[in-house]
Amino acid sequence: MDTTHRVLILGGGFGGLYAAQALKNAPVQVTLLDRRNFHLFQPLLYQVATGALSPGEIASPLRSVLRRQKNTQVLLGEATDLDAEHHRLVLDDGQTVEYDSLIVATGSADSYFGHDDWRRNAPGLKSIEEATEIRHKILYAFEAAEREHDPQKQREWLTFVIVGAGPTGVELAGALAEIAHDTLRHDFRSIHPQDARIFLLEGTPRILPSYPEDLSAKAKASLIKLRVTPQTGVFVTDIDDGGVAVKTPGGNERIAARTVIWAAGVRPSPFADVLERRAGAPRDKRGQVVVNGDCSLPAHPEIFVIGDLAYIEQDGKPLPGVAPVAMQQGEYVAKLIRERLRGGTLPPFRHRDKGSLAVIGRASAVAQIGSLHMSGLLAWLTWLFVHLMYLVEFSNRVLVFIQWGFLYLTFNRGARLITGPDPSGRRAASVDESLAPTLKR
Amino acid sequence: MDTTHRVLILGGGFGGLYAAQALKNAPVQVTLLDRRNFHLFQPLLYQVATGALSPGEIASPLRSVLRRQKNTQVLLGEATDLDAEHHRLVLDDGQTVEYDSLIVATGSADSYFGHDDWRRNAPGLKSIEEATEIRHKILYAFEAAEREHDPQKQREWLTFVIVGAGPTGVELAGALAEIAHDTLRHDFRSIHPQDARIFLLEGTPRILPSYPEDLSAKAKASLIKLRVTPQTGVFVTDIDDGGVAVKTPGGNERIAARTVIWAAGVRPSPFADVLERRAGAPRDKRGQVVVNGDCSLPAHPEIFVIGDLAYIEQDGKPLPGVAPVAMQQGEYVAKLIRERLRGGTLPPFRHRDKGSLAVIGRASAVAQIGSLHMSGLLAWLTWLFVHLMYLVEFSNRVLVFIQWGFLYLTFNRGARLITGPDPSGRRAASVDESLAPTLKR
Repeated sequence: MDTTHRVLILGGGFGGLYAAQALKNAPVQVTLLDRRNFHLFQPLLYQVATGALSPGEIASPLRSVLRRQKNTQVLLGEATDLDAEHHRLVLDDGQTVEYDSLIVATGSADSYFGHDDWRRNAPGLKSIEEATEIRHKILYAFEAAEREHDPQKQREWLTFVIVGAGPTGVELAGALAEIAHDTLRHDFRSIHPQDARIFLLEGTPRILPSYPEDLSAKAKASLIKLRVTPQTGVFVTDIDDGGVAVKTPGGNERIAARTVIWAAGVRPSPFADVLERRAGAPRDKRGQVVVNGDCSLPAHPEIFVIGDLAYIEQDGKPLPGVAPVAMQQGEYVAKLIRERLRGGTLPPFRHRDKGSLAVIGRASAVAQIGSLHMSGLLAWLTWLFVHLMYLVEFSNRVLVFIQWGFLYLTFNRGARLITGPDPSGRRAASVDESLAPTLKR
Repeated sequence: MDTTHRVLILGGGFGGLYAAQALKNAPVQVTLLDRRNFHLFQPLLYQVATGALSPGEIASPLRSVLRRQKNTQVLLGEATDLDAEHHRLVLDDGQTVEYDSLIVATGSADSYFGHDDWRRNAPGLKSIEEATEIRHKILYAFEAAEREHDPQKQREWLTFVIVGAGPTGVELAGALAEIAHDTLRHDFRSIHPQDARIFLLEGTPRILPSYPEDLSAKAKASLIKLRVTPQTGVFVTDIDDGGVAVKTPGGNERIAARTVIWAAGVRPSPFADVLERRAGAPRDKRGQVVVNGDCSLPAHPEIFVIGDLAYIEQDGKPLPGVAPVAMQQGEYVAKLIRERLRGGTLPPFRHRDKGSLAVIGRASAVAQIGSLHMSGLLAWLTWLFVHLMYLVEFSNRVLVFIQWGFLYLTFNRGARLITGPDPSGRRAASVDESLAPTLKR
């Protein structure tokens, strides 16, 4: 029998993929399991949702990425159960996969804070399907407005609400403003797309709450220049077909809108429950799995949890659920497994903060790199450079660059397709409901 | 009141779009109605189905294409009825649109020869949704084979049947062979994608029956070289979850296969029924609308039918349902409308045959241009040139060229995504059923 150490990785997002790649020449046998056959470059998902890029341009087939890595196999499937005692994972078809080390990197899903019925009218932005659903909703809204004769209804179709002003919400709002004011400017005859109103709602006192205050202020000013209406200290109390009910510092209000997008909260993927039940994993109040300093579970040193799913503190503060943390944890755990095979160990994981970047629009972004705060063109160029460098496959990288070149020169968005059989968006909603991602970041 | 002559065009495929564009500076008011917001470059749809291109790369938003044409508006909607007497078209939402001239270019849909239940297991290739459904089925088949331990079942997953060996069937078979033998060659650990068997079934005695015999023979030889199995004189008698039942010259057979693709027949779009009922349009035996020599209806000189939907003979033979015929008819009808406004008329429509082209694989194609028959690299280069030139939008054209450059250099297909919530393909089937295209080519 083959006695090579078997590493099983759940999830081909940033954490899982980087762990797999860091095990390239290790004396181990790696299996990467994902529900999807591709790695998704999630930071650019909002560009699919706004018609700038096609899904294929921000996704790389996992098999392609790992094809030259002979010790690694990719498996398409979903993990449904775990037998931690016997080191066995159970798949959806009943098949089991054995492991010596298990790396769980299944990420997070949208959280509607207990109001899962809001999802129907306010899709989130976690998957390719949701991104094309949002694209559909945005583009269809302008089409419906063009056909509508009642000015009140027309106004509702031209009102867009984005809930949550973290980086995703800000990026969506900026791109949506560019669609309305530039891309579609000459495309309609009965409406003026520039009349679109875009509300960006945030519960905390400022947009980009995880950023330094000066950058929040700069981002707010840039959004207002793009004619986005940011509203802070605002809580959503209901979302239905006709719009959003909100509680503001000044009282309760209703925004009549036909397009609402959810960018407000995430919750751990459902596999966290399996880890709790089967491997005694402790959870924090948001449901994340609390791990040791080396990303392993307290009761199971051979099980690691990384990325959005893991709760880990550094210098007394929890690490944020962003791609760089997941990537570094993936690499750290891979290194730790190698060390353990040699009988050694590693000091606890430490995240090296390379900074934060959020893009607002054409030539406009905010960036924090250590103590350096940037905004405007320079921040945007940094954003451009960083994102191109990280896009996994070379051909994708070049294509995205060219698409962006066209977009920024011409304002034209090439991937402006309303797909799906029902232009009313009803199908999109039903697809959405079955989407709760488990093994996918 | 504005008394400008109103031209209403149904369908933004090749016929409708070319008609609209040819009316650019005419003293008319043009409305282009389509269920979709984009023009689809259908001849390249098989490349989406085989993961070489993304949907956005072969589709151009109609509003973008026509944005500078000030006399033209685009309307998203579906025509459900016609009041030919009062020159009014009824839309799905009850709204009516009046016209002075009506151009119907709603194209064709898949025909399963009375067996519409086959559609569930054998999607056709008429829309973006069907193309991504086929992409899903093809890629998922290799994934399922990789997971399967039973050799018989593995073989079924690796067996692909394409029904119909016209240009679409041949192009799909060639691309599928390249996926199995080149693109995926190093991607799996338990299976050899090269073991895939690809059957191309044709009822008539030879593949590409509309092409000259020598080119059919060349195409057949090229396909066999790519390890495709073409079978002629074969009729499908049933399609179910497990495969295809066929009647061959040698008796009845069954091909156990999990992936079946339909490229066998088309029928006119449902709007032909409306034209028959409401405008007395005669139909031929295949259901196409029989038009006058100038593409108008016998009882309604102000209604024109062009493209796949129209039956028109030239030199005693019906014109084929291909893009160049639709484009030329669109331009002809536009010119005729201009002439009529000046009190003149035009001689009957004549199709200028520029030739036929079908691509088989990398550097392999067949072409007929007048009496010139070409095959191999030269035909392929011709195909490449013609298709790039015709792609509507400049940015798409460049992107496709780059994608192809990568594809032909590296065999890598960038858009290899299995999307949709259910990897078993069940959702895809349900989407399919609601897809019956009406106002879309």
